[in-house]
Amino acid sequence: MLKTAAYAAASAQSPLAPHTIERREPGPGEVLIDILYCGVCHSDIHQARDEWGGSIFPMVPGHEIVGRVARVGRGVSKFQVGDAVGVGCFVDSCRHCPQCESGLEQYCDEGMTGTYNSRERSGGAPTYGGYSTRITVDQDYVLRIPASIPLDRAAPLLCAGITTYSPLKYHGVKPGDRVGVVGLGGLGHMAVKLAVAMGAQVTVLSTSESKREAALALGAQDFAATRDGSVFKRLTRSFDYLIDSVSGEHDYNAYLSLLKVGGTMVLLGIPETPAPVAAGVLISKRRNLSGSMIGGIRETQEMLDFCAEHGVASDIELIGIERINEAYERMIKGDVRYRFVIDIASLEKQDA
Amino acid sequence: MLKTAAYAAASAQSPLAPHTIERREPGPGEVLIDILYCGVCHSDIHQARDEWGGSIFPMVPGHEIVGRVARVGRGVSKFQVGDAVGVGCFVDSCRHCPQCESGLEQYCDEGMTGTYNSRERSGGAPTYGGYSTRITVDQDYVLRIPASIPLDRAAPLLCAGITTYSPLKYHGVKPGDRVGVVGLGGLGHMAVKLAVAMGAQVTVLSTSESKREAALALGAQDFAATRDGSVFKRLTRSFDYLIDSVSGEHDYNAYLSLLKVGGTMVLLGIPETPAPVAAGVLISKRRNLSGSMIGGIRETQEMLDFCAEHGVASDIELIGIERINEAYERMIKGDVRYRFVIDIASLEKQDA
Repeated sequence: MLKTAAYAAASAQSPLAPHTIERREPGPGEVLIDILYCGVCHSDIHQARDEWGGSIFPMVPGHEIVGRVARVGRGVSKFQVGDAVGVGCFVDSCRHCPQCESGLEQYCDEGMTGTYNSRERSGGAPTYGGYSTRITVDQDYVLRIPASIPLDRAAPLLCAGITTYSPLKYHGVKPGDRVGVVGLGGLGHMAVKLAVAMGAQVTVLSTSESKREAALALGAQDFAATRDGSVFKRLTRSFDYLIDSVSGEHDYNAYLSLLKVGGTMVLLGIPETPAPVAAGVLISKRRNLSGSMIGGIRETQEMLDFCAEHGVASDIELIGIERINEAYERMIKGDVRYRFVIDIASLEKQDA
Repeated sequence: MLKTAAYAAASAQSPLAPHTIERREPGPGEVLIDILYCGVCHSDIHQARDEWGGSIFPMVPGHEIVGRVARVGRGVSKFQVGDAVGVGCFVDSCRHCPQCESGLEQYCDEGMTGTYNSRERSGGAPTYGGYSTRITVDQDYVLRIPASIPLDRAAPLLCAGITTYSPLKYHGVKPGDRVGVVGLGGLGHMAVKLAVAMGAQVTVLSTSESKREAALALGAQDFAATRDGSVFKRLTRSFDYLIDSVSGEHDYNAYLSLLKVGGTMVLLGIPETPAPVAAGVLISKRRNLSGSMIGGIRETQEMLDFCAEHGVASDIELIGIERINEAYERMIKGDVRYRFVIDIASLEKQDA
C-alpha cells in the first residue's frame, strides 16, 4: 500500500484537516495517478457535513480530479505514464446492467461507486477522493485531458462540466435555440459556456442584478434578474430549454411558464423539499420537466474533447489546500467565480 | 340563421334542459353538419358547473361530435354532402402562429376557439357544442370519419382518443415498450387500446382490484391495484412511459419511481392543487414529467385513420339526451364503461 497525504473531515462537525490514507498499487487494468488539481464541488460540503445522511468518516472529498499517470498496472492499454488524466464523480459501476452497457454508468442499476464517500464493489473499503496526492483507478473510469485545456481549469469539467454538457446534448440543443440558465454558480457558468459553444442564444436568470456583467462576459446574450417578477411576464414562452442549476427552493411553475410549446426544463439541483408542480403548466404547452445527473465515461470524454475544440474551460480560483475550510464558507455565501480548485502541490509541501 | 334544438345549462346550478340555439348558414369554406352522436367528456361537467371559472351561460356542451355533412358553403373542397365527419375540442385558431402553422392548433399562441364555452374569433359570439342537432364549422377544423369505425363509437375518439394518441406518438412509443396507464376511465381505456395497437406491453394501474378483468379484456398484459402499496416496489423502474389520466390528487413521485432510466410520465389530468415533485426522482434516473393536451387537426385525422386500420374504437354506453343529467352523476362516481355517447336522434324526437 502507498501512504498518501490527504485532507479529511473526521466527522460531520469537524473542519477538514491533514490526514494520511493508503492507496493500493495499481492492479490489472488500473492506473496510479499523481493528483495535480482537484475542484471543490458544493456536494463536497453536503457530504463532509453529512447533510444528505449516510456519510462515511473519515472522509476525503473531491471528485474533480486532474493529474498525471504515475504507474500503470498489468494490461493497461489506454494510458501511459505521464499522460494527463482526469477522474470524475465515480470510479466503478456494475458494468453489465443496460445503463453500464450503453455508457450511462451514472445511472447504473446497482449504483455507481462514488469517487469518495462510497464503498469499493469488492471488499467494501471506503473510497477516498481527490483532496489527496494520488489515487488508483480502473482505466475504464479514467478520462484523457486534451493538451489544450489548462489542467487546473480542466478539473471542474469532470463534474460541473459534464453535469451541464450531458442534458444540453441529450435534449439536442442546437444553434439558434434559446436556452435559459437558472443560477450562475459553478454549474451555471459552465452551462452558459457550453450552450454558447453549441450555438445557442443564452439568457442567464439570476436573483439579483449583480451578476449581469459577469453573465454577459461569459457569452450570454441576455440577463434577467428574477427578483423583479416582471421578468416572468417579459420572458413568458421564450425558451426552448431551461437548465436549472439552483438547489435552493424556487417556484418551478414560474420557470416552466418561460418555456415555449414543447420546451424542456432540466433540473440539476435538489431542493430540500419537493416543489409543487401545476399539471396545467405542463399540459397546456406540452412542456417537460426533466432531470439529469453528471454523465457517463464516454460522454465525459466527448465533453472534454468538445471543450478543447471550442476553447472552453472553467473559470477558477486556485487555492492552497490549507484554505479549504475558508473556501467552503465562501461557497456557502456564493462568493466564488466560479469554482475553487485546490493546487495539490500545496498538500505535497505540507507532507514534506 | 337556423333554429337548432339543443340541451343547455342555464347556469352553473342548473341541470341540462332543452334549449334552442341558432346556427349560421355555412359561409365560404364552411360545412353544416347534422349531428348524429356526441360523446360526454368529464370536462363537460366541469364547465357546465363552472368549476374552472369563466363559463359562458347558457352553455351547450359537447366536443366529441360525429355527424354527416348536410350543406357546404362556397369553396368547400374537402367535404361533400353526406360525408361522415367529426368535430373535436376546437373549431378555430389564429392560423398564423408557429403552432398553427405546424399543425399544433391546440397550442395556438392566441388560444384555440373551443367548440363550446368559447367565443368566435370574429364577432365574439359564444360557441355551442354537440348536445345539439347541427353545427356549422370551417372545413379546416373538420375531421373525416373512416367508413369502418361505427359512428357512435367514433365520437369519443375526437377527444379521449386524440388526447391519448398524441402523447403516445409524440414520445415515440414503439413495439415492445412498456407502457403503464394510470386510471381506467374514458381516457385510460383509450390509452390502453391505442398503446396495445402500437405494439406496447401495457400495464393498467388503478386504485382497486375491481378493474383487473376489464383492463385485461381491453388488451393490457398486466394490472396493478395501487391501493396495495407493494405495487410500487414490484414495479419500480419498470416502464418506458406512464400515461397518467387521473385528475384527482395523487403522488407523482411514487409513479415517477416506476419509470426506467430515461422514462417519461405524461400528465393528462389536472388535479386541483399542484403536486409536489422531488427533483431527485427525476435527476437520479434522467426521468421526464411531461404534459399533453388533445392534438392538432392533422394528428387527429392520423389517429382516426390509425383506429380504422387497427380496429380501434371507444367502448361506449349510448344514451338518449334526456338521461344526460343522470349520466353526469354516474360519471362523477366513475360508473361508466367507458364513455357515454348521446344519440342525437333522441333530441330530434323531442324537437318534433
